[in-house]
Amino acid sequence: MSSTASSGARRGRRPGAPDTRAAILAAARELFASSGYAGTSIRGVAAAAGVDAALVHHYFGTKDDLFLAALQLPVDPRVMLAPVAEGGLDGAGERLLRTFVRVWDDERNQPSLLALVRGLAEPSGQRLMRDGVLQMILGPVGRALGVERPEERMALVASQLVGVVILRYLLGAEPLASMAADDLVAVYAPTLQRYLVEPLP
Amino acid sequence: MSSTASSGARRGRRPGAPDTRAAILAAARELFASSGYAGTSIRGVAAAAGVDAALVHHYFGTKDDLFLAALQLPVDPRVMLAPVAEGGLDGAGERLLRTFVRVWDDERNQPSLLALVRGLAEPSGQRLMRDGVLQMILGPVGRALGVERPEERMALVASQLVGVVILRYLLGAEPLASMAADDLVAVYAPTLQRYLVEPLP
Repeated sequence: MSSTASSGARRGRRPGAPDTRAAILAAARELFASSGYAGTSIRGVAAAAGVDAALVHHYFGTKDDLFLAALQLPVDPRVMLAPVAEGGLDGAGERLLRTFVRVWDDERNQPSLLALVRGLAEPSGQRLMRDGVLQMILGPVGRALGVERPEERMALVASQLVGVVILRYLLGAEPLASMAADDLVAVYAPTLQRYLVEPLP
Repeated sequence: MSSTASSGARRGRRPGAPDTRAAILAAARELFASSGYAGTSIRGVAAAAGVDAALVHHYFGTKDDLFLAALQLPVDPRVMLAPVAEGGLDGAGERLLRTFVRVWDDERNQPSLLALVRGLAEPSGQRLMRDGVLQMILGPVGRALGVERPEERMALVASQLVGVVILRYLLGAEPLASMAADDLVAVYAPTLQRYLVEPLP
């Protein structure tokens, strides 16, 4: 992104200035929260921030990239989840769980991840989770795994992972809070695998 | 302690007045939230509310009763869960799930139950959930079922139920939001049963 600072200077703007970037990000957060992921466009964010749509693309890439930037996630879930999706259905529950625990157990990640969880208390945070995390982050994993009714199955998977997040990371409830990663996988991988492959009602 | 019940009246108070009851309840909420379930006593609540401990017992019964009153639950979970605990381990996951869905699907219950969930954003709400809901409400069910390591198993059960609460009732995420109760039971009862009976790591 440092290479873009000079292009703004040519147009007389200073798009590399932190306040322009921050204004775009603030507008994106507000729009994603109020209109959801599906109801928000790069064009709409640009208009709200008072900049050209091309500038939004330039700084943040695609709408998905912008959405992830607005969520302030510490890692790119698409990168983290790629090996889960690519490894095939066999053992997918275990791979998903190992990735999930590795990201969440990393203390550098926890503050921003937990902020997202606390945001569930507000309608805007609920919308981000429903439209964004479920549809944009988990949905593609299910589709890449080639399961039938992928969105539904990933919602079941999410219902277990969210509960682990609440008990282990938000509440620090035992025995989950101090359970070793391998034990966590032993307990929960069969559950996730069942949600991925067993017949749905 | 009941011998002192009239002491408030002797001091010229009106213990039956709504504001006295409300003061006790407010003190209880504050203390349970700040000190947790285990760290709160009837005596402490009474002192904080400026009344005699007997008066607290008189209006609210036991510490467990006071805790449930402070949570403002729409139903008494001990009453609701009694048939789950009494029915034995066979089919316990399914009975627990049916009770859980019946209580949560009742629209009269949802506002106060969801308020409890939104409270998870605050440390006080987290403490109430960890010390109270898990230990006081779910723990006894596990002990009554006679499973080994009941608190640990009920924490696993809770990690799935909390996730269903978040997806189905808080986020309204499909397919969980519109799933019929029987289908929900078909999907999740095997998970709960496994957490109750399978070997723990």
